[in-house]
Amino acid sequence: MTDSINAFVPGPRIRIDGAATGPLAGLSFAAKDLFDVAGVPTGGGNHDWARANPVPTRHAWAVQTLLDAGATLIGKTITDEVSLGILGENAFDGTPLNSAAPDRVPGGSSSGSAAAVAAGLCDTALGTDTGGSVRVPASFCGLYGIRPTHGRLNLSGMLPQAPTSDTTGWFARDAETFARVSGVLLGEAAPAALPHTLLVAVDAFGFADPAVSAALQPMVERLKSLVGSARDEIMAPPGLSVWARAQRTLQPAEAWATFQAWVERDNPRFAFSVARNLVAGSQIPAAERAWAALMRQEARGRMTYLLPPGTILCLPTTPFPAPKRGLPLPELDPLRDRITCLCAQGGLTGVPQVNLPGATVDGAPVGLSIIGGRGTDATLITVARSMAAGSG
Amino acid sequence: MTDSINAFVPGPRIRIDGAATGPLAGLSFAAKDLFDVAGVPTGGGNHDWARANPVPTRHAWAVQTLLDAGATLIGKTITDEVSLGILGENAFDGTPLNSAAPDRVPGGSSSGSAAAVAAGLCDTALGTDTGGSVRVPASFCGLYGIRPTHGRLNLSGMLPQAPTSDTTGWFARDAETFARVSGVLLGEAAPAALPHTLLVAVDAFGFADPAVSAALQPMVERLKSLVGSARDEIMAPPGLSVWARAQRTLQPAEAWATFQAWVERDNPRFAFSVARNLVAGSQIPAAERAWAALMRQEARGRMTYLLPPGTILCLPTTPFPAPKRGLPLPELDPLRDRITCLCAQGGLTGVPQVNLPGATVDGAPVGLSIIGGRGTDATLITVARSMAAGSG
Repeated sequence: MTDSINAFVPGPRIRIDGAATGPLAGLSFAAKDLFDVAGVPTGGGNHDWARANPVPTRHAWAVQTLLDAGATLIGKTITDEVSLGILGENAFDGTPLNSAAPDRVPGGSSSGSAAAVAAGLCDTALGTDTGGSVRVPASFCGLYGIRPTHGRLNLSGMLPQAPTSDTTGWFARDAETFARVSGVLLGEAAPAALPHTLLVAVDAFGFADPAVSAALQPMVERLKSLVGSARDEIMAPPGLSVWARAQRTLQPAEAWATFQAWVERDNPRFAFSVARNLVAGSQIPAAERAWAALMRQEARGRMTYLLPPGTILCLPTTPFPAPKRGLPLPELDPLRDRITCLCAQGGLTGVPQVNLPGATVDGAPVGLSIIGGRGTDATLITVARSMAAGSG
Repeated sequence: MTDSINAFVPGPRIRIDGAATGPLAGLSFAAKDLFDVAGVPTGGGNHDWARANPVPTRHAWAVQTLLDAGATLIGKTITDEVSLGILGENAFDGTPLNSAAPDRVPGGSSSGSAAAVAAGLCDTALGTDTGGSVRVPASFCGLYGIRPTHGRLNLSGMLPQAPTSDTTGWFARDAETFARVSGVLLGEAAPAALPHTLLVAVDAFGFADPAVSAALQPMVERLKSLVGSARDEIMAPPGLSVWARAQRTLQPAEAWATFQAWVERDNPRFAFSVARNLVAGSQIPAAERAWAALMRQEARGRMTYLLPPGTILCLPTTPFPAPKRGLPLPELDPLRDRITCLCAQGGLTGVPQVNLPGATVDGAPVGLSIIGGRGTDATLITVARSMAAGSG
């Protein structure tokens, strides 16, 4: 079964037992191959990455934290190359299976982590989210997934991409496991109090496929009754596509800065689409980056205004369910750009976001996202648990 | 020894005996892995190319012609990916050894063919030359090499790159073998008459490293005394760099047109530099292509004016000997651009060009090129033989 899922990186499977006792005792987890495990090369999803980098001598902070809490590591998972990708198709290692929709991509870049959890191969799995790499596979595979507040978690031992947007996230199939893992990684239990105000991002619901917005409507209604007060809001007054443009300026330019020395020294092999992404990052003019930095500042201000304590915002995580596997680039590229329009706020503003599973379109999962102000990650976990309890 | 040269593509070596009799009976040859051999996948130097294309059912014209003339095929050789490269470092198959300068690259894209001939593994080898892919490895490895008149040879069964510049060329270690093979592939014996006028391309000699121009001077003097009359000329009045710019506009745009459908459908793996080249080709504005087409027309007129019957032109084939192996891209890129300045006339104007070995700089080979008007390929062979006889 494991092989048919293709969630784990090629080669012998690693296993590291967690501490005998702890809040996660009995749970198993997998780690995206961007996280260091002592003594194991970090593959980075690219066959030329590992040999250009030393074998790590200590675990990444997130791996160590889960082990210390009692969870057992059962493998490292396939990722889009150096986390550059949102669909989960890796030309070197293949495409992990989306168990919830086997003819569709799992989403990426945390593709193998999402696939492993979705298939029940482990209870939780670590991913990274720079531009949507946890949120998108969570939506496509029907999982709980979190992009925490940027800067909140210790990212040591995690392969960086665009540091001003990089986060460590994780997946789970059920809200209780999600809450247990989140309590450990956030270092904060989910509070009892629910938010009192729900904002419905009408620009984002308008941007998603009508079938997606319709499918999510029952979840929005449950959320409204849970929270109490609700109102419609435009999340991004300049336009979701303008925020996306800013993110797609800052992120590739930073990714190029991260990988430039390696690329220029080793001329590594990449799938064409990944190399093209790096080339684009290398070509962004300074004036564009300066504009994008101003737009980021403005977007952060917007989120601070929208999300005072006690207020959360909801939107579709992705504008459509997972695309079919193996589509040609001219069909994938516009889909990727539309996904970015609904995901850009995370990398741009750093607010925490949780994907709630529970809806399908054409039989494929699609998730509802909740966003809170910076630092309110645990409140979003509370909402996730309450929503699950309400729907049970 | 074969393995240490790394001239041949991975996998079992093919061998096809040539006709029992014929002008090339007793000779062995290799074919760049861009030429079809019936029943053998054409690899194209890229690990995703072969599986996207049917196994050929007939030999390429050039392969069949050599077999029919009595030469025996002893292997297919490593090439830069889909012939996009001028240095001969292939991230998938490794870098063939330059026997004449083992710490330096062999040049490309016909890297394995040049390496095989230079190492004595075969008598001659087929290459392709779009922007310098025979001339450059001939110069770097110290071999005779020809880029024939564009459009003269039948290119069926040869993987195209930029059809308005693509040619089939070949290498040999000595002038007599070179003349025998050339007689068969050109379908024309080398004439008795030598040219009567030699033009020395002062812009090209001025552009090459001073050490290269100095090292080639004895060959230029021999050429002058062989031909009789000589005069200095500027080959490219708009500038070698302007001709190079035109070629670097037309060729990548055409290469993108050649490979776009495959790239967009399969998202194949490439070394970063190769993908970057394709991305650049995809981004060239129509107005730039239109300008380059005018410059090509002008350059063709210049070559017609410079090279009436009986006149040849000489220039350094490359501005320097082979660079060291394994240089990072920021050091290689400007070298590649300088090479293009001395090679652009071939792809741009279609005139035939032959590299004559015979000089070294720092112990590494560097060649002198002779160019004639369109269709005068056989006369260049005559000059090559006479030069060899004169230096013998």
